[in-house]
Amino acid sequence: MTSSGKTALDAAVRAGRGERIDWRFRSIAPALAGLTLDEAAARRANLFGDGFFGPFVVLGAAELAHNLRTMARWCAERGVVLAPHGKTTMAPELFARQLAYGAWGITAANAGHVRIYRTFGVSRILLANQLVDPSGLRWLAGELAADPDFEFACWVDSVRGVELMTDALSEAPRPVDVLVELGGEGGRTGVRDSATAYAVAEAVAKSPALRLRGTGGYEGALSHHSDTTALAKISSYIDGVRDLAVSFAEKGLLADGPVYVTAGGSAYFDRVVDELTKPWPDGLDVLPILRSGAYLTHDDGFYREISPLGAHPRINGVERFRPALHAWAQVTSKPSAELALLTAGKRDLPYDEGMPEPQLLRKDGMVNALTGHTVPKMNDQHTFLTLPADSPVEVGDWVRLGVSHPCTTFDKWPLLPVVDTDGETVIDFVRTWF
Amino acid sequence: MTSSGKTALDAAVRAGRGERIDWRFRSIAPALAGLTLDEAAARRANLFGDGFFGPFVVLGAAELAHNLRTMARWCAERGVVLAPHGKTTMAPELFARQLAYGAWGITAANAGHVRIYRTFGVSRILLANQLVDPSGLRWLAGELAADPDFEFACWVDSVRGVELMTDALSEAPRPVDVLVELGGEGGRTGVRDSATAYAVAEAVAKSPALRLRGTGGYEGALSHHSDTTALAKISSYIDGVRDLAVSFAEKGLLADGPVYVTAGGSAYFDRVVDELTKPWPDGLDVLPILRSGAYLTHDDGFYREISPLGAHPRINGVERFRPALHAWAQVTSKPSAELALLTAGKRDLPYDEGMPEPQLLRKDGMVNALTGHTVPKMNDQHTFLTLPADSPVEVGDWVRLGVSHPCTTFDKWPLLPVVDTDGETVIDFVRTWF
Repeated sequence: MTSSGKTALDAAVRAGRGERIDWRFRSIAPALAGLTLDEAAARRANLFGDGFFGPFVVLGAAELAHNLRTMARWCAERGVVLAPHGKTTMAPELFARQLAYGAWGITAANAGHVRIYRTFGVSRILLANQLVDPSGLRWLAGELAADPDFEFACWVDSVRGVELMTDALSEAPRPVDVLVELGGEGGRTGVRDSATAYAVAEAVAKSPALRLRGTGGYEGALSHHSDTTALAKISSYIDGVRDLAVSFAEKGLLADGPVYVTAGGSAYFDRVVDELTKPWPDGLDVLPILRSGAYLTHDDGFYREISPLGAHPRINGVERFRPALHAWAQVTSKPSAELALLTAGKRDLPYDEGMPEPQLLRKDGMVNALTGHTVPKMNDQHTFLTLPADSPVEVGDWVRLGVSHPCTTFDKWPLLPVVDTDGETVIDFVRTWF
Repeated sequence: MTSSGKTALDAAVRAGRGERIDWRFRSIAPALAGLTLDEAAARRANLFGDGFFGPFVVLGAAELAHNLRTMARWCAERGVVLAPHGKTTMAPELFARQLAYGAWGITAANAGHVRIYRTFGVSRILLANQLVDPSGLRWLAGELAADPDFEFACWVDSVRGVELMTDALSEAPRPVDVLVELGGEGGRTGVRDSATAYAVAEAVAKSPALRLRGTGGYEGALSHHSDTTALAKISSYIDGVRDLAVSFAEKGLLADGPVYVTAGGSAYFDRVVDELTKPWPDGLDVLPILRSGAYLTHDDGFYREISPLGAHPRINGVERFRPALHAWAQVTSKPSAELALLTAGKRDLPYDEGMPEPQLLRKDGMVNALTGHTVPKMNDQHTFLTLPADSPVEVGDWVRLGVSHPCTTFDKWPLLPVVDTDGETVIDFVRTWF
């Protein structure tokens, strides 16, 4: 990323801080309406005493900083660059912090994401999909024409895709970098065999609109487990992504310049880096690019269990990630001794990778650990809380919930309060764009 | 709803039409940026030819109008009023249309919803929960003080809740209407027995801040089926909500004025209305209030199967609802003969009440039915499409998907194009606020 790219993003983020708080942000205290984000942050409002409406999802400032630092250091030590998947947060100011901590670029999932990133001045973007929509491609050509510093690469995994891209990119001012995506058996996108991979690479080499920059993959689609068999499968798959880049080089199919080899969700990035940092053939200038996004906030569910820096760490000598995303919801009903209902539901909290985890109880201003309570299910606007025999939970109390899956948490909140280490003083706000 | 209430909402909706389209609306064509919603609608852009970015979820104008008309007529014929649950769409202009079609008020799920409704001038709101948050209650007291025409009622289901409300509403200019909620065995919120119901009602009668206006319930939490046993359970439960209102009246616990008796999601509203329109005791002035919200768009999944006006209709002589919400996503990858991947995922489409349903294939500008294709799973940004042996699906084609569960569709889209009967000419836009 050029320094001008970082500057443009920083400027756009600063401009965004001038946005004024109002009713659009459903949990934010009405008393803060009319203030800019910076002015509201300066108030150091209390989540429980200053008029916020439950439920709310908050970010921990210290945990965010810890995770940013931890991942940046580890990537630097291992000699890989990070292009974190921005779809996790869709928060340009978090992109800016990731870049300030050394990230090389930001990864996107679709053309709409790229457009939002570009609006905020992100200057190096990996689109982790084959983009075949003529509308998106024509828009992309315009972006490339408007900004000579804009660096973009996306995946290709079919000859037909290469043809569609070539047709729609006829107006592009320079060839678009593409990586051939290798898919795994039982996986998601990506060519399933080397014959197809070569056919696609050869089509790219012949395309006036495209330039073969390397190979990519996504190991996260292959497993949801971290046993030895699963990890071996991941390593073997990444080895294939690596081998494909080497054989493209041998066949002379790659464009001049650095070769990108990229993979990495947030579950197996240790294995990805182990494979991608093994010695490359002499003369092959490879840039291994990791794309993990969920490390930023970590979680209290899926990633806690499976992350290489989670509850069962697979990396030694590095501090674990800390969960930076938590929800608070109030007990609005306790219809029986065994059941309470919280004011939060599927519109507020994630439910696709496990239910939220009751962790703390706030009663009369005092916060204590809450054990033995579970969430069996959620409705659109309600969370069911199963109470043990001696539960202290009463109507009016507040429950802190850990969440599983940052991606499906952020997308429910246009503005998230950032809290100090006390967990309830609001010292900042993060704006998301979904 | 007073005419001033409708006027305020209409004016706020008209003002909202001045909002200008830009990058915040990820699927909307960049070429429409800078236009107001009305200006953009006047362009009559084509979803596929004019630069929209996939995926998109669209509303069918004719289907919306049909469902609005159908539900309005049926409620009028059956002598019930409708306070549709606004959480389904969170779209003030759809609230305005529901009110224009005779709806009595709008239902909300939490204080944040009420605040958004009030911002848009909705003047009669049912909050279908017990509100015990002092922040929300103090804000509510201010709203009631600021607008003598604002009519509000919410649920109570515990003596503790009544106490918390009474404390926090000390500044309210007039008593707040409340309904005692009856819950069913295995249900959600609401008192589980009549002794508790009477205790809560008596606490309300003694509260200077509250006024007992009737009873309420939610039958949708009791079943997800429509067999005879399930329907009998629903009817018996609603009968209990009804009986509770009668016994409150007999005990002299109700405030003067009309008695509200309310229930009704979108799965069993036929049974709710059957029970709530049986003759009431002489002299009891009961207003039966239905709260169904999903009828507005209906769906191609859960509600199609279970709605009284769905695929297995339980109401005679009335046209069925028509699905008004559909998604379009492009095929970006076809890694094998059995699998394609669409550019849409859990950030774009609902997945909590069944997977989206492949319905149409758009190839080279021609649209045809797509049969034998299924969606086995979704990732954050990808939809897996299982292909039959003779599938015509290729990279670059577009697939129309039916969706299940309107509530978890709307909340993923801040701006939805409304399409004409051809399914692809954009004639309007609907703004949501989540």
